[in-house]
Amino acid sequence: MTTKEILHMNAGHGETSYARNSAVQAITDLCEPTSTILPKSMAIADLGCSSGPNALTLVSAALDAIHHHCAQQQQPPPEVCVFLNDLPSNDFNSVAKSLATLKHSYGDLDDPVVITGIGMIPGSFYERLFPCGSLHFVCSSNSLHWLSKAPDDLKEGKIPMYDMVEHLRVSRRAAVGDAYARQFRKDFTQFLSLRAQELVTGGRMVISLYGRCSENPISRSNQAWQVVAVALNDMASRGIIDKEKLDSFYIPLYAPLENEVNEIIEDEGSFEINKMLVRNPFSGMDDATVSPKMIALSIRAVFESTVVLHFGSSEEIMDEFAKTVEQKLSSGSGWRAVLAAEYPLKSY
Amino acid sequence: MTTKEILHMNAGHGETSYARNSAVQAITDLCEPTSTILPKSMAIADLGCSSGPNALTLVSAALDAIHHHCAQQQQPPPEVCVFLNDLPSNDFNSVAKSLATLKHSYGDLDDPVVITGIGMIPGSFYERLFPCGSLHFVCSSNSLHWLSKAPDDLKEGKIPMYDMVEHLRVSRRAAVGDAYARQFRKDFTQFLSLRAQELVTGGRMVISLYGRCSENPISRSNQAWQVVAVALNDMASRGIIDKEKLDSFYIPLYAPLENEVNEIIEDEGSFEINKMLVRNPFSGMDDATVSPKMIALSIRAVFESTVVLHFGSSEEIMDEFAKTVEQKLSSGSGWRAVLAAEYPLKSY
Repeated sequence: MTTKEILHMNAGHGETSYARNSAVQAITDLCEPTSTILPKSMAIADLGCSSGPNALTLVSAALDAIHHHCAQQQQPPPEVCVFLNDLPSNDFNSVAKSLATLKHSYGDLDDPVVITGIGMIPGSFYERLFPCGSLHFVCSSNSLHWLSKAPDDLKEGKIPMYDMVEHLRVSRRAAVGDAYARQFRKDFTQFLSLRAQELVTGGRMVISLYGRCSENPISRSNQAWQVVAVALNDMASRGIIDKEKLDSFYIPLYAPLENEVNEIIEDEGSFEINKMLVRNPFSGMDDATVSPKMIALSIRAVFESTVVLHFGSSEEIMDEFAKTVEQKLSSGSGWRAVLAAEYPLKSY
Repeated sequence: MTTKEILHMNAGHGETSYARNSAVQAITDLCEPTSTILPKSMAIADLGCSSGPNALTLVSAALDAIHHHCAQQQQPPPEVCVFLNDLPSNDFNSVAKSLATLKHSYGDLDDPVVITGIGMIPGSFYERLFPCGSLHFVCSSNSLHWLSKAPDDLKEGKIPMYDMVEHLRVSRRAAVGDAYARQFRKDFTQFLSLRAQELVTGGRMVISLYGRCSENPISRSNQAWQVVAVALNDMASRGIIDKEKLDSFYIPLYAPLENEVNEIIEDEGSFEINKMLVRNPFSGMDDATVSPKMIALSIRAVFESTVVLHFGSSEEIMDEFAKTVEQKLSSGSGWRAVLAAEYPLKSY
């Protein structure tokens, strides 16, 4: 599971509908600069599709946009290939069943969008996934803040992601942040360069990821895994999890600042930025309906596999984890202040 | 699951290694008519890949052949896309994990075969699966005897696949056989025509399926589902399953005669037959090591989902089914005579 779960609470106004609109816009843009004629055959891909109800959201939006555009221009819709990518551990069985339904639903339209290829592409998007110049449109929602791995230099230097000793933590904060930023730069550069090879000339990409707001001074130093680290630290200090194990625990997650993303895209050089949007994904959430407990459970859902893999945790430990996260979110200025600093959402 | 299971008993000499050799030969042929230079980028697909250890057998053979050919010709290997297809209900989660291993194992070779695309394509191969002219090599092993559906004219005319009343069964045998043959002709023609659209000019296809031997008089009238029907008929006569339900039970399976396959390929017209081989898949099996019980369990594995879907059978009923199949295989001239008539294997 990915951090997407957090956003399910805000159905209809959340990140998915936001990315969906961007995808529709990109498909429209894809036709307009050259002519109103779409290519005869198109390939679209969602990278990091996950499974469940949201897996097909973006490709459906793209297919709708293609269908709408062709109806408006009174031209026959192109043959479309749809590709969904995620890591090999993703639940592709459920994606396969949804895709079968999708294929037939677009085939049943009046001017059917003929889906001549439907593929599930298991693999990391930090590696090549598609042949050269084979894709017209790529989208990736809520995935690119996940790194290919935690920073090697922290692991090798035995510098913990989050030091239990406060003065060490404070003195190493910049080093930890820099190591994560370097890993993000490396991964995101690689992502852009690979996709540039895979896209046709003039192809479009819509991506969304968690980021930090440059304007928000708290968020400048915080990391996206902060709330998890604080809770685990608390549990280690109470002897619930092993302190040494905490020192060697790294979450491969980084929420970049807006200008970091800008700079990397410019430095890599394959893409131009058409539009960049920043929003606070928690802005639509209501304190009356969203409780720290709900958020804590979502955070558990997102991080459980990572925590269990490292700590070999039991059900009891994960319950305690959710409880501790909930306490942290409830204390001080509340969940809104804690999370808004850590998870502002960006869309490019 | 498919009838592939039956052949696991004969590992190393079975249908898979047979199809594997044909796949290697086809890849070699693919290079030789034009020149010794392979295209820079190739796409290969296995249709009806299933899951488990055999899922990657044919594409691995093709990748090995590409690697070997390039090493011999001292040319850089092409970038290859690998696609595995099966119905949406296939276990794609296990295929995804095997594919991740495959990708890296070919990337680690001295002259790496660069796999730039790995896709799992859920869907029926009686529909379009790939864009026009996008595939260089297609293989399909042990799948094409499965029809897209049971013959409509039998269902509509309420003619049972296998009549409980012997004289009706005998009088209707030809009608039932013809209906199945027509459905096979329709499906197989469709398969050929779709693949012809999807293959590049000069592309190759290797297929293997269960067939009946024209020379064998018993097999001329028998159907591939005969042993299953006989067992279910026996169970219905003993009141273990519902007689009326048996009358409306149709297995979408047809084992064609050699000349039927020949004729359909010629009539459809897109493909030339380079080589056609027929073998008895049971010829390598030893009566001392293969028992009717083992075969009955394999037949249960293949048909359980179909039987359960129709009869809503319980564990006890499926146990009784396997026992009845075992009895049928043990009686008379034994399992060899029963099966050899029904499942001679063909490779094209």
